[in-house]
Amino acid sequence: MRSLLGDHLLQRLQQQTEGALYHRVFRCLRDTITDGVLAPKTRLPASRDLAKELQVSRNTILNAYEQLGAQGYVQAMTGSGTWVAETLPENYLNVPRNEAAPKNKSSFDLKHLSQRGTAFLQHAASSPYQWGAFVPGIPDVTEFPHAEFSKIQMRLSRQADVSGLIYTSDGGCLELKQALAEYLRVARSVRCDADQILITEGIHQAVDFISRALCDLNDHVWIEDPGYWGARNILRMNGLTIHPMAVDHEGMIPDPDAPIPKLISLTPSHQYPLGSHLSLARRRQILELARIHKSWIIEDDYDSEFRFSGQPFPSLQGLEENTPVIYMGTFSKTIYPSLRIGYMVVPKNLVAALRVISAELYRGGNMLTQRTLAEFIQEGHYAAHIRRMRLLYAKRRAFLIELIERYLGPDFVHEYSHEAGLHLVLKLPDYADDVSITQLALVRGVKVRPLSQYFDQPSQQSTRGLLLGFACVAEKEMLMAFSVLRQCLKEHDIFPQK
Amino acid sequence: MRSLLGDHLLQRLQQQTEGALYHRVFRCLRDTITDGVLAPKTRLPASRDLAKELQVSRNTILNAYEQLGAQGYVQAMTGSGTWVAETLPENYLNVPRNEAAPKNKSSFDLKHLSQRGTAFLQHAASSPYQWGAFVPGIPDVTEFPHAEFSKIQMRLSRQADVSGLIYTSDGGCLELKQALAEYLRVARSVRCDADQILITEGIHQAVDFISRALCDLNDHVWIEDPGYWGARNILRMNGLTIHPMAVDHEGMIPDPDAPIPKLISLTPSHQYPLGSHLSLARRRQILELARIHKSWIIEDDYDSEFRFSGQPFPSLQGLEENTPVIYMGTFSKTIYPSLRIGYMVVPKNLVAALRVISAELYRGGNMLTQRTLAEFIQEGHYAAHIRRMRLLYAKRRAFLIELIERYLGPDFVHEYSHEAGLHLVLKLPDYADDVSITQLALVRGVKVRPLSQYFDQPSQQSTRGLLLGFACVAEKEMLMAFSVLRQCLKEHDIFPQK
Repeated sequence: MRSLLGDHLLQRLQQQTEGALYHRVFRCLRDTITDGVLAPKTRLPASRDLAKELQVSRNTILNAYEQLGAQGYVQAMTGSGTWVAETLPENYLNVPRNEAAPKNKSSFDLKHLSQRGTAFLQHAASSPYQWGAFVPGIPDVTEFPHAEFSKIQMRLSRQADVSGLIYTSDGGCLELKQALAEYLRVARSVRCDADQILITEGIHQAVDFISRALCDLNDHVWIEDPGYWGARNILRMNGLTIHPMAVDHEGMIPDPDAPIPKLISLTPSHQYPLGSHLSLARRRQILELARIHKSWIIEDDYDSEFRFSGQPFPSLQGLEENTPVIYMGTFSKTIYPSLRIGYMVVPKNLVAALRVISAELYRGGNMLTQRTLAEFIQEGHYAAHIRRMRLLYAKRRAFLIELIERYLGPDFVHEYSHEAGLHLVLKLPDYADDVSITQLALVRGVKVRPLSQYFDQPSQQSTRGLLLGFACVAEKEMLMAFSVLRQCLKEHDIFPQK
Repeated sequence: MRSLLGDHLLQRLQQQTEGALYHRVFRCLRDTITDGVLAPKTRLPASRDLAKELQVSRNTILNAYEQLGAQGYVQAMTGSGTWVAETLPENYLNVPRNEAAPKNKSSFDLKHLSQRGTAFLQHAASSPYQWGAFVPGIPDVTEFPHAEFSKIQMRLSRQADVSGLIYTSDGGCLELKQALAEYLRVARSVRCDADQILITEGIHQAVDFISRALCDLNDHVWIEDPGYWGARNILRMNGLTIHPMAVDHEGMIPDPDAPIPKLISLTPSHQYPLGSHLSLARRRQILELARIHKSWIIEDDYDSEFRFSGQPFPSLQGLEENTPVIYMGTFSKTIYPSLRIGYMVVPKNLVAALRVISAELYRGGNMLTQRTLAEFIQEGHYAAHIRRMRLLYAKRRAFLIELIERYLGPDFVHEYSHEAGLHLVLKLPDYADDVSITQLALVRGVKVRPLSQYFDQPSQQSTRGLLLGFACVAEKEMLMAFSVLRQCLKEHDIFPQK
């Protein structure tokens, strides 16, 4: 009996007459994927079965699958077969300024969206499937002690009491807030009591929340340029007026002529994406400025757990007493993204009001997951996991740096890079078209992000480069991916400089 | 060695000179609670320990604790001691129009919030601790088969694969969307494919999302009056202009003179809070109106699983082909609120765009919980649980109706009530001050909500009444709580009418 898919492919195959058989099979499968008949993340039939259905040799199918893989349409997963990629090459719409990939964008029925919805969509930049070399900002989720975590969860769910099952309004699970307050005091020099903490789903939710609870339409917000597109997009959707501020090796350079900000959004420990560290002088300057103007500072401390040498830089929040800082952190980088737990530390005089607003907007979070996380931290597993990941990521970063220095030259490592974080910036010469290089690499299965896309305005400094995430890439995979990347650079006339 | 709390109380006690000793101890403890020294949800010391510390008899402490309990400051939990209530009588700020309880509101430092944040806060109406007789809209969370659910979760977490751990962008876990599409087709006559579903955290998030993705500032939205304050508050925060429409026994009455709406927000199956069902004629009328004006309809189908007699009313979404309806549902009422999972079914031409916007705002949900829920549904546990709860809630509702009819009279049951849902409306005469009755009942440990607070505008119909949730209240507790409520009504000159 032939499967539905088999029927469909046979029909298509009969219409293809040119080229080698394996290539015709490849084209049929590719079209079936781009038409959506084979949806992203579906498993392809086993090569043996499909060969039988199409009455071709198994090698023909294997060759077709290989070509699909090489072009980014499918991914082979060890032990679980071949799957349609979630990121189809055609779908790579993370590159708003590029005109080569409008296909997917134009397929959106934009006329039904609101203006703010349309603008938000057009600035959307999340990649569909964020895994593999060199997706930035993703931890190695396979290294997390899932068994340990589930064991705690299982135990707690047996004791589930009413207060952990209903709507909650105290800004998150008390035990988690206590564990976090302790952790943040010690690890990040944050000055806070447990009750200043609000549990969130991560940085995006926190920015969405703060930009509405504390800011009105047309309030001014200063952001770093280059900076994090995700936060920028949310601030814009909520009606704030954005003022990008240049960044140097000391972090954001406040512009004395810019309008008075209601909000200043910073990544002080590890400027995103360049990697510089906000200097003490700038910290004092920005704090003073915020105090004078009654501005709030968002301190997005997204990956500060991962410093591989020297002492961690303490938080801006804790530099002085009662700073006007909303400190934001996330477990997405230390545990895994789909845990969807993060946190804010808010100034004392905001706690009561923000707690009510948060409860009213979000109605509390999943208490069982939060309780589990609290125990996971209290029992020491969290600190142990971070220590282990710090060593692993340090090794991976060193390996990547070595590859860059050996095969391209030391000038290709961005000069603001510190030994920290989950990604680094591969610096490219000014003539490089980092967007096209990104697309070429993607087609060949290597995911990077073009640095130029992180800039909001023309910059005096070099804006060309590639963000390479190294945390979720084992060394062997890194080696292969890097050689693909070198080839892409070469085809764009970028050669080693030594 | 004396505890810190012991010291504090002794100091306070020395300043109290009047009244019986137990009453002095009561006053000290009460003030310690209202001052926030003993925070909500902290456990009081064991009576024996505190007696020793204060050098009084244990009976004195027990009497003081009892009085604290009677006035709503603490709650005794069987087997786990006495706890400071989360809802302090002073804190009951769910009653915006009432002038007797501004204490807590004024303690908010409102000057730091944005205008929209302030307005949102001032309309916030979630109760702090939503459990017990007669909190509306809460299922009996103790009846959920938690063990079954955790077993599935434990099994799945052992097989956790990468795609369930990273950021996701396809609007939720595929398996859950498939299970839901099937369920909604059968149980709610919703016309949809799995890919029209977006997994949310619940109705609030869905409303927050849709009101920004599809509506701009000053777009008009029609809502039911009386209606759900939670949705109304979020729509307002996002800058929409709200037009309340009166409701009768056939549901919303569209006002021909109101401005053309971008959005029409409805609870067609079980009008919230009155309980009427949107008639077929009104359904057709509103659908036509939406089509002519290119409006979107929000169908909030929050508790339609629970109809206790007759056939369930099919959804508005599925009444015709391609309705301009965003159908919203939640597991908060069928499983438990802190699961934080809900769903939207969106029209096909919106799917692609809304999925990107959702991923960009929320970065996917917790995949493990979603996968677990999918299996829980697929294995039939979900349908079985709903069937069981339907019987239980039907019994509890009948019991409450009987109490009302026997002790107050049949006129006290609101005439729009159907045999459905998790709450009913106890109708009061027009002279009744339902807000004061609510507060009096709260002090005595019984939680109800005043109907008048659900109205946005003066109404021709009676606006006085109390919402009584019956789903989470066992019959024995209901009996006691109801007699407390009767006493409160009596003290407000409301007597049985037969």
